[in-house]
Amino acid sequence: MLRGMNEFDLIAELFAPLAAGYPGALGLKDDVAFLDQRPGLDIVTTVDAMVAGVHFLAKDPAGQIAAKLIRVNLSDLAAKGAAPFAVLLAAAFPRGVSEAWLRAFAQGLAADLKAFNIALIGGDTVATDGPLTLSVTAFGHVERGRALLRSGARAGDTLWVSGTIGDGTLGLRVALGELTDLDSGQRAMLLDRYRLPRPRIDLGARLVGLADAGMDISDGLVQDLGHLCRASGVGATIEAERVPLSEAARAVLRSGQTTLASLLTGGDDYELLFTAPPEAEGAIRALGGVSPIGRVEVGAGVRVRAGGGAVIPIVSGGWSHF
Amino acid sequence: MLRGMNEFDLIAELFAPLAAGYPGALGLKDDVAFLDQRPGLDIVTTVDAMVAGVHFLAKDPAGQIAAKLIRVNLSDLAAKGAAPFAVLLAAAFPRGVSEAWLRAFAQGLAADLKAFNIALIGGDTVATDGPLTLSVTAFGHVERGRALLRSGARAGDTLWVSGTIGDGTLGLRVALGELTDLDSGQRAMLLDRYRLPRPRIDLGARLVGLADAGMDISDGLVQDLGHLCRASGVGATIEAERVPLSEAARAVLRSGQTTLASLLTGGDDYELLFTAPPEAEGAIRALGGVSPIGRVEVGAGVRVRAGGGAVIPIVSGGWSHF
Repeated sequence: MLRGMNEFDLIAELFAPLAAGYPGALGLKDDVAFLDQRPGLDIVTTVDAMVAGVHFLAKDPAGQIAAKLIRVNLSDLAAKGAAPFAVLLAAAFPRGVSEAWLRAFAQGLAADLKAFNIALIGGDTVATDGPLTLSVTAFGHVERGRALLRSGARAGDTLWVSGTIGDGTLGLRVALGELTDLDSGQRAMLLDRYRLPRPRIDLGARLVGLADAGMDISDGLVQDLGHLCRASGVGATIEAERVPLSEAARAVLRSGQTTLASLLTGGDDYELLFTAPPEAEGAIRALGGVSPIGRVEVGAGVRVRAGGGAVIPIVSGGWSHF
Repeated sequence: MLRGMNEFDLIAELFAPLAAGYPGALGLKDDVAFLDQRPGLDIVTTVDAMVAGVHFLAKDPAGQIAAKLIRVNLSDLAAKGAAPFAVLLAAAFPRGVSEAWLRAFAQGLAADLKAFNIALIGGDTVATDGPLTLSVTAFGHVERGRALLRSGARAGDTLWVSGTIGDGTLGLRVALGELTDLDSGQRAMLLDRYRLPRPRIDLGARLVGLADAGMDISDGLVQDLGHLCRASGVGATIEAERVPLSEAARAVLRSGQTTLASLLTGGDDYELLFTAPPEAEGAIRALGGVSPIGRVEVGAGVRVRAGGGAVIPIVSGGWSHF
């Protein structure tokens, strides 16, 4: 229970309205919620935890923390081709958190739930002597048996990503006060990319039936491709010069303040990584906002090749699978 | 990522075996899991968060922390009449947590998952500079439309509880080194009641069709009955002398080291609180391990009456709904 505040009153006032429109949430007045089952659809679920100082900065705006929390989970669902419909929230708020902060958090939550047309269907709020610690469990629907899994990649598939790669990790550096020589528009863009992931829900849904495998990029392109390759029992080669970079990322690269290897292994992209047979290329290009960046191969491990064909050595913290 | 340890290796080694037997968990190798949908059954879900120093003691055995985490969630499902089938785990482990501690935690988790015949179907593991912070999302099946809700109580219903009340809060005092004059068997019993809730899954399932409303008692009998009354738009009276107490609780009461009011408002009981029409009394008594403790009434609020009929005044932290 929050100091000087009644947990139940807080939940009723700030969170209960977020359950509106979803009868199975029981108005957040029970201990449980009912999941919406629909004929022909699988229910997929995922959970992500975030800790202040690790996954976001404690000084980040409360509403943006709430939005990031929701979006990292929706990004996981999007990568499977699933349409999100509900979330559960478990929140450990630091003792002494202000009502103003909580209201801003709830407003950010409300705005995102509305934007993505999903409901808060339950949760648990506790107090902690430690940092703000949050977890969201998200639920989505996808055509039965057709979700894009990590394990579906096949040798010969083309490797694709959505959006641009490396902006999230540069945005964190902006948030930390670095990269001050960039122009303000580029700094703002990178910061936004770090704070507000855009889950590629529409794209993911359209990839069902076209792509063989999919996941979102949260830990870094190379690491996450490594996970996908292991789950699928394949290898992959990234052609570095085909990896889409934003103008801002190119500017930082030119200034010598980052390396291509850093961009390919930095976290917080929240773009989709997927593989598809070569014959799907036309249909996939037509979706827009996607780039082929390499190929899935027989074998294991991830290689990154420069334009001339030379392998770019990449070593990132703790990860040494190639 | 845990210091000096690869998150993915840790998950693979300790947690992946806990997904065995549940294909929709994808071996914990994907970001999502699929929920098992069955004809004629609702899927109910609940989430509970626990923080070291708040919901358990940091020095509690790791395996028992894991077990309590699972059981407080299963207790919520049991109270609805639902049979649990799966859980998701979000864990923020303190940096520097030992491999031995993690192994003991995973062993406790494994033992309980096996005991309750449920699978770990996904999760997220992160590091924190703060206290151990855990949340579990649990899933259960219940006959469609027949779950026991908080909102189902009707004036005239009999009020029932399972087991004995107040042992959990006394067990916490034993854990804190108090109540040293109790005999060692009673101390062990109370400690066990605090550390290892017994979710009343079988009882809950049998109450479907008999009871009108149900919830588990986690915050204290009086407070939780207050929540149930508000959700149902009714009032209730507890007849204090009918509330079942363990021999150990009676001994502490006799010694003057607790009050009946403390036992009726102490947390961590994890027994079921339910209401049923008087005509169901015979069938409910036949289930065993349950006691009628009062009546649901027209009106609002909770009253506690002593044997002579006098109202026992009860005030507990922050809660003032009667």
